[in-house]
Amino acid sequence: MAVLVQKFGGTSVGSIDRILHVAEWVLNAQARGDHPVVVVSAMSGETNRLVELAHRIAPIPYSREYDLLIASGEQISVGLVTLAINAAAARRGLGGPCATPWLGHQLGIRTDAVFSKARIQAIDTDRLRGELDRRGIPVIAGFQGVDASGNITTLGRGGSDTSAVAIAAALKEAGTPGVDCEIYTDVDGVYTTDPRICPAARKIPRICFEEMMELASLGAKVLQIRSVEIAAKFRVPLHVRSSFEPVEGTRVVSQEELRSGPGALLEEVVVAGIAADPDQVKFTLQEVPDGPGVAAAIFGALSDAAVVVDVIVQDVSSDGRLNVSFTSGRSDALKAQGALEALAAVRFPGMRIVMRDSLAKVSIVGVGMQNHSG
Amino acid sequence: MAVLVQKFGGTSVGSIDRILHVAEWVLNAQARGDHPVVVVSAMSGETNRLVELAHRIAPIPYSREYDLLIASGEQISVGLVTLAINAAAARRGLGGPCATPWLGHQLGIRTDAVFSKARIQAIDTDRLRGELDRRGIPVIAGFQGVDASGNITTLGRGGSDTSAVAIAAALKEAGTPGVDCEIYTDVDGVYTTDPRICPAARKIPRICFEEMMELASLGAKVLQIRSVEIAAKFRVPLHVRSSFEPVEGTRVVSQEELRSGPGALLEEVVVAGIAADPDQVKFTLQEVPDGPGVAAAIFGALSDAAVVVDVIVQDVSSDGRLNVSFTSGRSDALKAQGALEALAAVRFPGMRIVMRDSLAKVSIVGVGMQNHSG
Repeated sequence: MAVLVQKFGGTSVGSIDRILHVAEWVLNAQARGDHPVVVVSAMSGETNRLVELAHRIAPIPYSREYDLLIASGEQISVGLVTLAINAAAARRGLGGPCATPWLGHQLGIRTDAVFSKARIQAIDTDRLRGELDRRGIPVIAGFQGVDASGNITTLGRGGSDTSAVAIAAALKEAGTPGVDCEIYTDVDGVYTTDPRICPAARKIPRICFEEMMELASLGAKVLQIRSVEIAAKFRVPLHVRSSFEPVEGTRVVSQEELRSGPGALLEEVVVAGIAADPDQVKFTLQEVPDGPGVAAAIFGALSDAAVVVDVIVQDVSSDGRLNVSFTSGRSDALKAQGALEALAAVRFPGMRIVMRDSLAKVSIVGVGMQNHSG
Repeated sequence: MAVLVQKFGGTSVGSIDRILHVAEWVLNAQARGDHPVVVVSAMSGETNRLVELAHRIAPIPYSREYDLLIASGEQISVGLVTLAINAAAARRGLGGPCATPWLGHQLGIRTDAVFSKARIQAIDTDRLRGELDRRGIPVIAGFQGVDASGNITTLGRGGSDTSAVAIAAALKEAGTPGVDCEIYTDVDGVYTTDPRICPAARKIPRICFEEMMELASLGAKVLQIRSVEIAAKFRVPLHVRSSFEPVEGTRVVSQEELRSGPGALLEEVVVAGIAADPDQVKFTLQEVPDGPGVAAAIFGALSDAAVVVDVIVQDVSSDGRLNVSFTSGRSDALKAQGALEALAAVRFPGMRIVMRDSLAKVSIVGVGMQNHSG
């Protein structure tokens, strides 16, 4: 009996009807012989509602109270989905409660203390395996964990993907044989590019972890990149599919499997997909004195402010002054601005900070490009 | 510096505007020299929304997933009120975060495992006192606790009152000098009877614990009865007042204080108030064989089903058969029916169960009635 981690995104649990559907879907997987472990996101719209309430109080409220607030969205889903599975199980005459609700802290999903962008450090699989040994169906809140002080943390937008893959990886590491992970979403797989922008986009039946990571990091929103990183590291095969249509989605597998599995191609595909990210900003720092430790000071300050930097370009002008440009996501722009202004005040008084908004990044992805000219 | 537990009900935190008002109110109390400990209910309408979602899935869903679900209402309030106090403190130039969010399990509010009607067993005051020593303002989720297995439990409707009084009592027991408790609600005090039904109702300036307990147990909804029981047991003075108008509300104090304090009367007031509870049902069990242990079997079964029984009337017919009638709240009716049917099937095959709905109970309350004829 293989453990099947099934992650249901916001639209998949977006209404009571959808939740009742998910309950049947999970019990069907159990009836087929799999052992489901369910991970849920907040109902679609719920997180936005909570974020909007918070933003009416404070502009950038990232803090432990903010994370505690927005984590309640997944808590609601866990309660409702557990109720629905148990009601459906009773209708099928399966007897007794079979699904049990788990919040991040109850399952021991330990993270660091970077609120709103926490990273999972460890998962206590004993509780989860105990639950599986009792033949229960754990229903787990995605997106959330607990730091060493007992504060509730959240993993950032799309963090439920990461929760699901991390749970699958932890079970695999703990010796559970045959752990698979299904990511249910509102599209039926990963496409060569965004089908809403380009109607000629095609669904990719199989893709390797490395290409998927590139696509995710470059703006494809179907999977959070950290979830793919974890899947690649622990070799957890993913199946990205729709909870609305029971059709095969996209399998994310290792390069070896991609080359040997069904549908393998004789010639390597050069380009797997194209990704675009319209939410980029570029910072340019002018009149920075050159010298040892300057770049470290700049990017250290940005790192302390939890700003994720993407592309960096650095050049030295003829008078020995440094120009440093970098890009980051628009959501980090305010934090970056604050950190750079503080740095200018304390260390580089002459430094000028220029921000350019409204940038997009287009990327072409494919393992085949490594050894294909042109 | 006296510790002042301030409990804000659903309407008091019913909108972002109200929450911003609460934040100023709490900081004003701090500025006057009190040390606030804030306890919050769910925003008005939020618990009903969650209950309604649950009921669309399962008719009587009391279970750990149900409690986990509805506890999220208070979690949202805790996050928002904490954000609001810290934003207001920053505007006042008070520096650094001063309010910290606490869920029931984080504060160690231990309860039994009776979901949806849990009783508080202990509160770990070490964490709370540590927070007070740091001059922080703890913002605590009312209505919720955690059982010995780590499951989230809830205390029943109005349970946030109980949370607040229990926290005040625990602080007092732990040696904190001068603990007061304010209950903020949408009315400006306790009235002689429901002013929406009887316009001649008057606000009671002072009432003793015993009378308040009677009023609360008999249907006055302004305070949950268990909160008054705890207040009486640990001598925690309560002040029931409005968060909309800064006027004196109703002080709930000991009988001694009532007789000696300001506004004490030379003659004892005979009747303090009149309460009505329109949500009663009456069960009558007919054809029950009389004998030792019969009443114990009936009320034991009801107790196991967590049915709260109120008035009991028992009589024996001429043929030695027993008739037992009792009343309970409408919310317990289905549970009572189930327990009695199970009992009839197993032990009293001839027993007939008759339920009468649509009952109300009217009660007249006053300590003075004990020694006043008529």
